Order: sequence, then structure tokens, then C-alpha cells
Amino acid sequence: MFRNSMPRYEILSADALAQLDAGWRRLVTEIGVEFMSDRALELFRAAGQRVEENTVFLDPEFVLEQVAKAPKEFDVHARNPQNTVHIGGDAMAFGAVYGPPFVREGEVRRDGTFDDFKNFCKLSQSFGVLDSAGGVVNEPNDTPLDSRHLDMTFALQTLTDKIYMGNVVSGVNARDTIAMGAILFGGRDVIEKNPVSISLINCNSPLRWDDRMLDALFEYCEAAQPVVLTPFILMGAMSPVTIPAALVQQIAEALSGIALAQLVRPGCPVIFGSFLSNIDMQSGSPTFGTPESAIGLLCTGQIARHFGLPFRSGGGLSSSQVPDAQAGYEALMTLMPTFLAGTNWVMHTAGWLDGGLVASYEKFIIDCQIAEMLQHMFKPLEIDAGSLGFDAHQEVGHGGHFLGAMHTMERFRTCFYRPFLSSSDNYEKWMRTGALDAAARASKVWKDRLESYVEPPMDDAIKAELAEYVARRRHELGD
Amino acid sequence: MFRNSMPRYEILSADALAQLDAGWRRLVTEIGVEFMSDRALELFRAAGQRVEENTVFLDPEFVLEQVAKAPKEFDVHARNPQNTVHIGGDAMAFGAVYGPPFVREGEVRRDGTFDDFKNFCKLSQSFGVLDSAGGVVNEPNDTPLDSRHLDMTFALQTLTDKIYMGNVVSGVNARDTIAMGAILFGGRDVIEKNPVSISLINCNSPLRWDDRMLDALFEYCEAAQPVVLTPFILMGAMSPVTIPAALVQQIAEALSGIALAQLVRPGCPVIFGSFLSNIDMQSGSPTFGTPESAIGLLCTGQIARHFGLPFRSGGGLSSSQVPDAQAGYEALMTLMPTFLAGTNWVMHTAGWLDGGLVASYEKFIIDCQIAEMLQHMFKPLEIDAGSLGFDAHQEVGHGGHFLGAMHTMERFRTCFYRPFLSSSDNYEKWMRTGALDAAARASKVWKDRLESYVEPPMDDAIKAELAEYVARRRHELGD
Repeated sequence: MFRNSMPRYEILSADALAQLDAGWRRLVTEIGVEFMSDRALELFRAAGQRVEENTVFLDPEFVLEQVAKAPKEFDVHARNPQNTVHIGGDAMAFGAVYGPPFVREGEVRRDGTFDDFKNFCKLSQSFGVLDSAGGVVNEPNDTPLDSRHLDMTFALQTLTDKIYMGNVVSGVNARDTIAMGAILFGGRDVIEKNPVSISLINCNSPLRWDDRMLDALFEYCEAAQPVVLTPFILMGAMSPVTIPAALVQQIAEALSGIALAQLVRPGCPVIFGSFLSNIDMQSGSPTFGTPESAIGLLCTGQIARHFGLPFRSGGGLSSSQVPDAQAGYEALMTLMPTFLAGTNWVMHTAGWLDGGLVASYEKFIIDCQIAEMLQHMFKPLEIDAGSLGFDAHQEVGHGGHFLGAMHTMERFRTCFYRPFLSSSDNYEKWMRTGALDAAARASKVWKDRLESYVEPPMDDAIKAELAEYVARRRHELGD
Repeated sequence: MFRNSMPRYEILSADALAQLDAGWRRLVTEIGVEFMSDRALELFRAAGQRVEENTVFLDPEFVLEQVAKAPKEFDVHARNPQNTVHIGGDAMAFGAVYGPPFVREGEVRRDGTFDDFKNFCKLSQSFGVLDSAGGVVNEPNDTPLDSRHLDMTFALQTLTDKIYMGNVVSGVNARDTIAMGAILFGGRDVIEKNPVSISLINCNSPLRWDDRMLDALFEYCEAAQPVVLTPFILMGAMSPVTIPAALVQQIAEALSGIALAQLVRPGCPVIFGSFLSNIDMQSGSPTFGTPESAIGLLCTGQIARHFGLPFRSGGGLSSSQVPDAQAGYEALMTLMPTFLAGTNWVMHTAGWLDGGLVASYEKFIIDCQIAEMLQHMFKPLEIDAGSLGFDAHQEVGHGGHFLGAMHTMERFRTCFYRPFLSSSDNYEKWMRTGALDAAARASKVWKDRLESYVEPPMDDAIKAELAEYVARRRHELGD
């Protein structure tokens, strides 16, 4: 997996951090955080926090004591051990887009299907730049609603041998995901020791945690499966319009959720989550790949490190409706800061289009290209006698060229990153080969990848047991 | 003009810098630098440097003594004083693409014309994000070759009231540019005190300065007009394939050119130039927006600061043949590092397409959009009681929204950057309004901008004098 040993780009001064720190303390103390769950309220009350109706007024020191119980770094295990990921430190792990109800394929935008879901699993398996297909790569709208999570989990477990995300629609769905993880990895005790999934618990910002997400959180934390406590903030709607206010709110929300996770099971692995962008104040539309979002991301990294927590943010976000120039620059406008901030868990790396409403095949390929470029950019420079190349100058002299120099011959195969999508063909060759723009070439790439996809090997007995579990539970759920 | 008061992203350790430092010293001492100009050789010889044929073997300490004579920061004056730019420190100035023989307009790629040139001048005037149209925004292939520089300079001086770049094809052309600057600003003595142009002197890398460019350098330096000493390096062809070697070569080339400039006129304003990308080692094609180029750029900034010099690099570079997703992500892949490095003089900010062979109208607009986003991103965060927004939380409470909050109402007009090209329309509205992708919308933008363009006011007598100079010189040059 990718490790980012380049420096972090940090833009908050110590004084700024102190002001944000004072900000979240005041929020949790004076405004408090709502938890729409009796179990959560009871846990906080039992731990000595003041609870009024659904609002918990938190002592910041208590919150930090809970946060300190969370591991700073941990592994999430894949069924192929080579794909096990480390979360935290300088490690960066990447998952595909999560949540879109629609799919775009070439010129067609339509409801997402389970076939699309399986295709995106296969594409995620096929690209080394991704550590995971994620979870709900697209909503499989043609499958029954109550048992859909079983189909998705089965596809993630069988079509990829990478880590996967857990379903969070309800406690029931979470239990099923955990049970299927136990089947795949050899028992609940095994996965409690070596977590196998990451689950996204979104805050209903501002300052409210909803019951269904919390029910899922309880299940995952009891099973010691990592949860990403994520304030979902579109500034201007779910937070004040100022970035510092959004950051303060984000800390209050993430830390209050993390405190709850630690009350459920001390030491449970957690990730400080961030999904931070803004709306267009004229139209009310969510906007992505914005300067404000990039700044928020850089700050979030610094804040998470301040609390000693791994963090999630970033991705190839864009508002664009099609995989055009805007989609390209907006995706990079978030993805480069994702690397600058050293984001540990990156959701929405590939495939995000149209404000996240669409999983796009072409954008998936474009994003994998961008992420691969960035993984090459964020590699430390090796400086030694060989790379300083004095001998090459001796050989070539003034005004010559280095194409045939010995120094070049020894290195030319690997010296530069070679993109799989970007074209540097001269215009004549480009015209001759069809004059395809990046989206059209991406279309060929994903079709080729699906064609050459090979399902990763799996024990037949385990696969049968998973299938049997899916069938049984589907029946029980009435679908 | 834009000032970047965000931190610089520096990736070279002190040890790495020391190794690069030793590297260029060895290059200039043992390999030397070729100057294809008797006058240059004589200047170096007279200053005590060893000269053998066209090669000058430089004493690194002598080079640094010359470099120390250059100003760390300086102004370049525009005829509209509001458009005067500062070069150096945290100032960043931006010019349009420079040099393309071809133009792309919508689906058509063709030879560039003088009408195109004038259009790009007008567009550069119209976008506040640009400080200059640059110089050869495109080659005006329909104008006579020997007097073309007069037409271009006249257009830059009259259609914009921003700073412009000097022609460098020959010493004669440089003299004409200077003479026209003297007319515009009220005399040669005036512009010698307050420089009015920046001129690009490219090195014929590796380690060779050619005569025509040097002839131009002599003219500009004698007139105290800033020159950008720029190694033109496509790694693998004009330098070894390793980034450290390219950086070392770049230092040797830039500093040797700067030393010459200081021998011509001590204290002449100079800019440490960098144009650093790589070729595709399989096809030999130049590639832009690459990870290697981004890394080189970050290092270059750090190196230039190490020598106390303002520097030039960056731009909206791309290999893409059309303004597609690749053009978008490659442009940002260079432009964001341009900001991270705090580049002082940014050429090729807008309009670059197809490896620099094409000035594209649509890409020009896309790049202005990207540059504007980045200027908003690289603004320091203001953290105070107002921006922390505690009162907004008191007003909104848990799970509410901030759209109508007082805190929002006070700020909603200016709180977020509002793009002029990117669309965040919902899909239905986007379809209803023509389903235009970013390139198609860019096409409307540049046409609208040209339509609403107003020539900046100018003294009639000066304009007549410039026109008379152009006519007379064209006649003398036989065109």
C-alpha cells in the first residue's frame, strides 16, 4: 500500500489551533451534542456527563480521555494478506466512490444496478491504486431494499480480495456484515482481533447523531470493527459559512462520536472523519472541488494529528455532470490536498461525478489515473551520486542530448511515471488513432479492464457458506 | 496583484540542498558552460574566469558574487499603475501562454494569426487573474516575420494596460521592444529606473547559451529590463533522466546566465527561470503536468529562495490535444504546485494546450478558472470570534440548517468563492440549459469577453508615436 513520506502541508499556526481547540470545547460544553439513541444517552449519563433530553453536554476533558483510548494506528485485514491496509501514520488507503444512486456510462445517465455494482467491484480489484472498492459503490436499485446489503457485501467479499466497508443502514445490516466477515475470516473472535471492515458513521450535522447510524455503530464497535465518525458538512447549510466555524463543529462532532465508540468498547479502532465542502450560496447547490473544501481538508489533517487520530477525508470530488475538464480539475483540486494532508483513509477516490449522485465509469478511470500520478508525485526524491548524474554530463557535453547516454539506458524503463490514460501523442498520431478525448479513452480502458478481469481465488466451502448465509437471511428478511 | 501568504511547501532537506549545491559547483567547474557569443566569453575572461573555446569554466564563488548583485525583489511597471507588478517575496504574477504556433478554437486547430494574438491580448486584459498577456501569446503567422515583433509589442502595449514581455528573437528585436517601451513610458532613462518588461532568455540545455538569445540579453540588461534566465529542460532529452541531475543542471545554467547578466549591468533585475518537465521515454514525446514536473517545481522554489532570487516556473501545462478532463487535471497538476512553491513569475498560466504547440481559447478560460480558484485557496484563514460562529450555533441548534441564520445573512455574498465557469447546476437544470460541458461553456465565456472588451484608454499622441515607430521600423526591416 501507499505510504506518503513527503512532508505534510500544514497551514494552521499554533495560535489558530488553540483557537479552534477553545471553539470545540465551548460547543460541546454549552451547546452540547444530540444523540437520538437511548443507549447512547445512557452510556454518557453513566459516564458522568450531563444529559438533557437528547442532548449531551460534554466535559471536554472527558472527551479527550475517551479519545486517548483509541489506537493511533491499526491494520484492516484483507482476505488476500497482500491487500491488508494500515490505517494511520504515513499510510494512505484508497477506496472507490460511495453512495451514488445513479450511474453514468458514456452518454447515458441512469439508475444504478447490481450489475454496475459488480462491475465497479471488478474495476476496483483491477486497479492497484485502490485498496478497496469501498462499500456502496453505487446503489443497486434493482435488488430488494431490505436484503441489498447482503448482495453488496457478498460481491465485495468475492469479487475483490481487498478490504471492504460495512453496511450502516441499520443495526441489523451491521450484524449481517459482521457475520459475513466472520464466515470469510474464520470466526468472530478472529475478526475482533484483526478487524476486516471499515464502516462510515455519518453525523447528521449540525451536532446530531441519528439512531440508525448509531445502531450500526454499536454493532461495529462491539465487534471491534473500525468506524469512521464523519461530520457531513456542506458549509452554509450544515454549518456556518465560515471555515473556522465548520472546523470547530467538525471537531465537536467527530470527537463526540469517537467518545461514544470508546464507551461502547474501549480501544475500538476509530477514524476521525471529515466530509467538508460548501454550497453555492446563490443556488443552494452543493459544490465540490472548491478552494474552501481544499483548505478545510488541509486543516483537518493537522487537527486529526493534533488529537493523535487517523483521519478520513478527500477523494475525487466534483460537481460536474460529465467527465469533462471541470471533472478533471475539481477532482485534482481535492485529491492533491488529500495527499498534502496525508489523509489516512480516502473515500470517493474514483468514480465520483455530479456532486456524488452519479458513479461514472469514465470518471472512475480518470480518477485512478490522477491518484496514480499523485502516488508517484508524493514519493521522496532519492539524491545520491547516481541520481546526480555527473557522468551523464561528461558523456553528453554541451548542447547534446541524453537519449542514448549510458545513465539514461540504465534507467529509462522506470525513471518516469508512465500514465495509462493521459495522451502525449503528437497531434497527427492522435488524429490518426481516432481523436479520442480522455473520457472516450477512459471508456475503452474500463471495458478492457472488465474483459480481462479475473476473479481472485477463494475457498469454495467459504464461498458456499457465504452464499448460504445470504440466501437464509434474505428469506428471513422477507425479500 | 496576488500575494501568497500561505506557507511554502518545501520537500528538500538541508542535506539534499547541500548535495544539489555541491552538484552545480562541480558542473560549472569541471564541465563548464558554453556561451556562443564572443562578447559573453570576453566578459567572463575579463572577470578572471577560465575560457576554452566557447566554454567558460566558472568559479562557483565568482558566480555567487555576481548573483548577489541581483535585486531580491523589484517592480515591473505597467502603464496603468494599478497593474504594476512586484516580482519576488510573496508576490505571484501571472502571464498567458507563450510561443504556440497553432491556435485551437472549438473543434478547429489551425495556424495562429495576428487576429488571434489580439484576441488573446484582449482576453488577458479582461481577466483580473492575469497580470500580463505575456509575450508571444501565439505566433501571428500571417504577419511578416522580420517585423512581427513590432506588431506584437504594439498590440501588447495598446490592447492591454498590463506589463508585457520583450521580444527575444534577436538583439535587433530587443532594441525595438526597448525603444517602444521608452516611447510608452516617457524615455529610456525612465524605463531604466522603472523597468517595464520581462524577457525570457532560454538556455539551449544542456549547458549552452546561444548567440541570438544572448544578443537579446545584452540589450535588455543594458537597459535594466528584467530577464528570466531559463534552462529549458525536458528530462531525458535535455538533461539526465533523474530529477536531482536536472535540478543541478538547472542551477548551473540559470546561475551562469544570471552571472552574465550581472557582468553586463551589475544590479540588473533577473529571475531564476525553470521550465522543467520530461519526455515519454517510449515515444520521445514531451509530457506535461507530470509528477516529475511537479516535484521539480517544488524543489525549484526552494532552490531559488536558497540563492535569494525571485523565480519563474509553472503554468497550466498539459499534453492533451483538446480541452478535456486530461487538460483539466494536468493544468492543475502544475498550477497547484506553482502556488505551493510560491512561484513569483508564472508564464503559461492560461491557454496552453497540446504540449504548448497550441494556444486554445477554451483552455484559456479553463485555466483562468483554475488560477482564480487557487488564488482563493491560497489565502490565509482568518480566525476570530466572528468566523468561529458560536452565535450561529446558538441560533440554529442541533440538526437545523444555517441558510437563514444571521451569521449567514451577514456573510453569504462573499463567504465562498463563486466560479464563473464550473457548473454545480443540478442535472435537470444542466440538461435544460443545453447540457454544455466545461469546454462548451468556456467557448461562450471567451466570446462574451471579447464582445464586452473595452480598450484601455491611452494618450493619442503616444499611440501615434508608437504606430509611427512600428511603420518606420517595418520599412527599415524591409517588410
